[in-house]
Amino acid sequence: MATFFATDINENHILLDENDSKHAIKVLRLKKGDIIDIINGIGIRAKGEIIENHPKKTTIRLFDKIHFPKPTTLSLAFCPTKSNDRNDWIIEKGTEIGVTDFHPIYSQNSERRKWNYNRMKKVSISAIKQSGNLWLPTIHEESNFESFVKSVNKLDLKFIAHCREKNAAPLIKLVNSLKKQLIIIGPEGDFTKEEISFAANYGFKNVSLGKNILRTETACIVSIAKMKFS
Amino acid sequence: MATFFATDINENHILLDENDSKHAIKVLRLKKGDIIDIINGIGIRAKGEIIENHPKKTTIRLFDKIHFPKPTTLSLAFCPTKSNDRNDWIIEKGTEIGVTDFHPIYSQNSERRKWNYNRMKKVSISAIKQSGNLWLPTIHEESNFESFVKSVNKLDLKFIAHCREKNAAPLIKLVNSLKKQLIIIGPEGDFTKEEISFAANYGFKNVSLGKNILRTETACIVSIAKMKFS
Repeated sequence: MATFFATDINENHILLDENDSKHAIKVLRLKKGDIIDIINGIGIRAKGEIIENHPKKTTIRLFDKIHFPKPTTLSLAFCPTKSNDRNDWIIEKGTEIGVTDFHPIYSQNSERRKWNYNRMKKVSISAIKQSGNLWLPTIHEESNFESFVKSVNKLDLKFIAHCREKNAAPLIKLVNSLKKQLIIIGPEGDFTKEEISFAANYGFKNVSLGKNILRTETACIVSIAKMKFS
Repeated sequence: MATFFATDINENHILLDENDSKHAIKVLRLKKGDIIDIINGIGIRAKGEIIENHPKKTTIRLFDKIHFPKPTTLSLAFCPTKSNDRNDWIIEKGTEIGVTDFHPIYSQNSERRKWNYNRMKKVSISAIKQSGNLWLPTIHEESNFESFVKSVNKLDLKFIAHCREKNAAPLIKLVNSLKKQLIIIGPEGDFTKEEISFAANYGFKNVSLGKNILRTETACIVSIAKMKFS
């Protein structure tokens, strides 16, 4: 069944916006009486009956609303890569797997300090529609490494992954999906030694993701998969 | 240090092919006496000194060869998606993480039955150069689901992941990186019930990858990450 995203899901009737109306009526060729899924990204899924199949303002009657509880915090902080495609991939795959918070950060070796928030939000909405994840992750504003590290609190487990230290503990030994977890993944040029010890002072644990050198986006997905399914 | 791939690494002197010579001399601007890494994809890494910096036929003297043992089998069988980009991702990320064998297969709901072997091999070589993985995965010829399932033997753990059965065991409970493992990931339309029971008859265990519905390429990477780091 087709899934649409709407923020005003508390009403009994809603209008799909112009893009979604066009998609529903012109692309999917839905008609009056057809049923769709509507999600709001904060835990509600409803059925929606098409009441008026207008190609710019489709009217939907909502029913059978179900509320799903908020998942445990699973935060991913990372230094965006130069390539938009690779950043999209991090957001898309992270959302599918169940990241609750994305924190784009820039560090000393960062390749990129600007961030297209709207692009990332679109990728993320598209990924929750497809994956059945009912909670839209929060995409935070970009911040620099030190400010971010200082600002993080109320989390149970804070990890920083890098390749500088051969003896860092394997992440897989420390993860616990029942706890609020955060991992920071560095840029292609890795974190500096100063950054790593700065994070250690704020309670971050050094972790290793294995012997191979993973690209930023691979490191993000591998670590999230380990943290989610532990 | 720049890494190059060469199959004739048993010699004391080798020539880089035209592409690699151009890359070394014209792009990286390497000169006589510069040192590079050479890998052969079957466990050997050597240092290479540039003896002649010819832009089409660069001569390299090899020294300090080290042999790394073959990793335990970690096989990924999957139904390639329509999108070349997504297939490239599977090969690239799978290679980085440490897949030893890729088996492209087609099943009843497959979107794609043709497979560009050379393209995949290039992606894979590029990923081992970047990741420090010294074993080039074998990319097998495409085969249909039933023939593949019948042909698999000499493995310790064989999994099939799908969304049809709510009670399948979580993959994470069954993985063991010390054993020879294989997982089959289905197409976007999933495996049919008949295919799932066919695989069960050949000793494949049904597994689940969690509540969210993962795209083919996400399912591939998530399951490989679980199997590799267990």
